Amino acid sequence: MARILITSGPTRQYLDPVRYLTNASSGRMGAALASAAINEGHEVVIVSGPVSVEYPLRAKLINVVTTDEMLEAATETFAKCDGAIGAAAPCDYMPRFIQKQKIAKTGEPLQLELVETPDIVATLGQQKRRGQWVVGFALETQDRRFRATVKLEKKLCDLIVSNGPQAIDSDQNDVELLDGAGNVIAAIHGNKEIVARKLLKKITKFIQ
Amino acid sequence: MARILITSGPTRQYLDPVRYLTNASSGRMGAALASAAINEGHEVVIVSGPVSVEYPLRAKLINVVTTDEMLEAATETFAKCDGAIGAAAPCDYMPRFIQKQKIAKTGEPLQLELVETPDIVATLGQQKRRGQWVVGFALETQDRRFRATVKLEKKLCDLIVSNGPQAIDSDQNDVELLDGAGNVIAAIHGNKEIVARKLLKKITKFIQ
Repeated sequence: MARILITSGPTRQYLDPVRYLTNASSGRMGAALASAAINEGHEVVIVSGPVSVEYPLRAKLINVVTTDEMLEAATETFAKCDGAIGAAAPCDYMPRFIQKQKIAKTGEPLQLELVETPDIVATLGQQKRRGQWVVGFALETQDRRFRATVKLEKKLCDLIVSNGPQAIDSDQNDVELLDGAGNVIAAIHGNKEIVARKLLKKITKFIQ
Repeated sequence: MARILITSGPTRQYLDPVRYLTNASSGRMGAALASAAINEGHEVVIVSGPVSVEYPLRAKLINVVTTDEMLEAATETFAKCDGAIGAAAPCDYMPRFIQKQKIAKTGEPLQLELVETPDIVATLGQQKRRGQWVVGFALETQDRRFRATVKLEKKLCDLIVSNGPQAIDSDQNDVELLDGAGNVIAAIHGNKEIVARKLLKKITKFIQ
């Protein structure tokens, strides 16, 4: 049985003490994957951004807020794991400057400079030792299969799960699991629990 | 007994189909105020942004996502109410342009131009007919009492509740209720249910 890191949920990038940039990731896919992995006898460590979903009690849970915090917790955890599934939707842009006080409205437009946050799955891909594996998620609104395969290569993933924006904050999901050659290993549709169970079976089978 | 509009929770302003600007408002204060008002025999309509809190079933609930949607639902509802409590934390900036497809990362910084969203409580203040009342909330990180009083005047509120950022997404709250002359009518500390009950008693007493 394996020790698996699952990243889950969104992260937040604050502009000031009140406002932040994020996405609607609910953590349900991460929670469903964690449950499926535990039921298969694996050990699970979840690194999660702020969510209201309940994670399985038998998983070890590390809570984070920002993408930098998720990166730190994930890389540290991954060093002691067999594999990682990047089900989180980390906020991938952050304000270049964070204001210490709440930005007061002036009636004028506000120019915000956003810079990219570090890529967590890509970092795990680079960190991989022999025998370790990384499965990424790609959420795209267009050219889904092509962009997912590009991401797989760029991030040094073994497999990538491609899904669309309708997956966000939804009970349902509609995914394709792709390998490094762009082959569709599985196309799965259903509620996130069903999708997670089938995905996990395919992933562990492929990895062996 | 009165018919009271309560706005609650955050709103979201999307940059693209995935990413949005928001804040950590949980809707707990709005839910607690709604329960307190219903227990006092009032009729309650809640206009709420996306939250995971449970609102009292006896309140009428209108769900919205953006600040514009909250404004529309709130102004329409307020026309048939005796008073309004603006407990929501609407996102007060929105991207000038919304991208139809997910913005792809390029490695370069992203310049985002934000413009102010309409002010919901100020709009309700302007809309007030004789006998109607509006209570606002001011969340400030500095000069709290002064800024709250300025907001009360600018937004044509009858009363304003001043609180700090530690109130966001917390069970506890620490508030001051201020009148138009800047007088502190009440200073209340405790969990949000206690604060809501005491606030509502003070508000309805003051309004009569």
